[in-house]
Amino acid sequence: MIIGQFKPMVNRQFVLARRPAGMPVEADFRLIETPVPVPAEGEVLLHSRYLSVDPYMRGRMNAAKSYAPPVEIGGLMVGGGVAEVIDSKNPAFSVGDIVANPLMGWQEYAVSIGLGLRKIDPAIAPISTALGVLGMTGLTAYIGIHEVCTVISGETVVISGAAGAVGSIAGQVAKIAGCRVVGIAGGPRKTQYLTTDCGFDAALDYKAVSQADGDYAAALSKLCPHGIDAYFDNVGGPISDAAFTQLNLRSRVAICGQIAQYNDVQAPQGPRLMRYILVARATVRGFLIFDYTPAQITPALAQLTEWVSAGKLKYHEDIVEGFENMPRAMIGLFLGENIGKRVVKVA
Amino acid sequence: MIIGQFKPMVNRQFVLARRPAGMPVEADFRLIETPVPVPAEGEVLLHSRYLSVDPYMRGRMNAAKSYAPPVEIGGLMVGGGVAEVIDSKNPAFSVGDIVANPLMGWQEYAVSIGLGLRKIDPAIAPISTALGVLGMTGLTAYIGIHEVCTVISGETVVISGAAGAVGSIAGQVAKIAGCRVVGIAGGPRKTQYLTTDCGFDAALDYKAVSQADGDYAAALSKLCPHGIDAYFDNVGGPISDAAFTQLNLRSRVAICGQIAQYNDVQAPQGPRLMRYILVARATVRGFLIFDYTPAQITPALAQLTEWVSAGKLKYHEDIVEGFENMPRAMIGLFLGENIGKRVVKVA
Repeated sequence: MIIGQFKPMVNRQFVLARRPAGMPVEADFRLIETPVPVPAEGEVLLHSRYLSVDPYMRGRMNAAKSYAPPVEIGGLMVGGGVAEVIDSKNPAFSVGDIVANPLMGWQEYAVSIGLGLRKIDPAIAPISTALGVLGMTGLTAYIGIHEVCTVISGETVVISGAAGAVGSIAGQVAKIAGCRVVGIAGGPRKTQYLTTDCGFDAALDYKAVSQADGDYAAALSKLCPHGIDAYFDNVGGPISDAAFTQLNLRSRVAICGQIAQYNDVQAPQGPRLMRYILVARATVRGFLIFDYTPAQITPALAQLTEWVSAGKLKYHEDIVEGFENMPRAMIGLFLGENIGKRVVKVA
Repeated sequence: MIIGQFKPMVNRQFVLARRPAGMPVEADFRLIETPVPVPAEGEVLLHSRYLSVDPYMRGRMNAAKSYAPPVEIGGLMVGGGVAEVIDSKNPAFSVGDIVANPLMGWQEYAVSIGLGLRKIDPAIAPISTALGVLGMTGLTAYIGIHEVCTVISGETVVISGAAGAVGSIAGQVAKIAGCRVVGIAGGPRKTQYLTTDCGFDAALDYKAVSQADGDYAAALSKLCPHGIDAYFDNVGGPISDAAFTQLNLRSRVAICGQIAQYNDVQAPQGPRLMRYILVARATVRGFLIFDYTPAQITPALAQLTEWVSAGKLKYHEDIVEGFENMPRAMIGLFLGENIGKRVVKVA
């Protein structure tokens, strides 16, 4: 985009039209047009190149307090993006810079005072990876495996939602640490991705188990003959229930997501799991990448970048074309459509 | 007992007659008589003075693997006791010594090579306290509050099963650490004990809530207007469910016991709680005092002893008279009969 010749006039944005009842539908979002904001002194104008869709966004659409305030009705949908600086009144940024902006929101343009922006070097990897393996989901995987699951070589690590943006990286990070890694995912395309592309030792197709006898615990036990030392949970629900029954002494469980429940209208019920935690003297910890400090994040990102550059860490991007497809792209996360990180290519 | 004048001939023991179906009944135990064992070189002969009854014993009566192997049918019921040395072929012990023996079992006499025996000074406190506040349950309380809940001054700490052997001490340990302590117990006699004798800031009578609207979460929220920073759980079930809904950011949950479920025949169901752990980024840890090392236990016991001696730590003992009442005393734990530590006075 050449500033001076063409100035964008219209900013397309997705706002929350209404709170979803259960599974979100497209009518829960509304596409609106607003004027492109004008950067004030110290600000930059950003043009979205890629926007992230992530399961956590579903929580923000509810009225209930979660780990962040809900999006208001009529409010801009929240989310991260990778954007190009197209105008700058901030000496730290030049026109043409590519930046990751965790506060981009579901919109084509935004102004920023620069806070939280991270410059991206397009020479290292596709800039979209700043939303995935070299961004929030990759860091979540790394921190979850090393800071929460605290894995050591030789341990058995189980990952649910293993073919997703976080799970597929988490499993590989555990492999690099010398662990035996078992992934749980839905369907043969995903399980094959895990064992073939990501180098997992084994993968469990939970949909196949469901169609057979539904005995997830037995199926998992076959793949984890020595039990589970660490469980990285992105999913919750019956798959997690099975994992809890197989926990070894002093095992660790990282609760990263509970995607199986995000669309539940009623409080979900299931077997009580605390007894397993007691018997195994396990530690179960919920975590969010936002809680970690630069002292933890910076070296983790450097390590991920090194592994990606060296080809040691594989990543898959599921790129949906077109800003107008943001709602559909996000809804599809809950249908298990994606392998790896799903992003929307805006421009 | 004067050795030389009278030698005991008969050792009464309780063995497991059959595995209980749900709540144990007296017929699940069998009283047998065996010869009093004769100590070999290096051994001592112990005569039980007090025997412990504890909720964990219920788990040992099941065939299922728990944190320890099950008691076999016909096998001696396991448990700790305080005993007197009545014969010694071990130079480390003299006749008349009082010792705590974690492996005493449900019997009047036992031989021991001395391993695990801890000498008790009757001048410090009643010897029965070696099974309670100055023994396993007191140490569980201390370690649970300081090593698992890692409380700091000013935090709100909630204790379930608060009038029991562990809970009543745990709450006082948290009070000494400067916390605001809320106990949950069944019935006005227990809640009054907590606030009057133990100095808890508040107590919730869950039976009263149950008879009213059953809204444990609302009742707990009233007593914890700033949420819960640490939850010391002895109980599990619906009371715990309520506590999980009130967890603060970075709160800690110590899973010490799940007495509400020990007699369940079917896998108990309840609301899924992992979402709360995620939102609060809470840490939930199962723990057993047996896992802690002397380096952790010794200073904890010294601290508890100092507080008891100084009158800073109150304890209540529920003493059941007569070895023959062991089964009834143990069953009564699940009926909520006891305040404080229940022990059986043998001789």
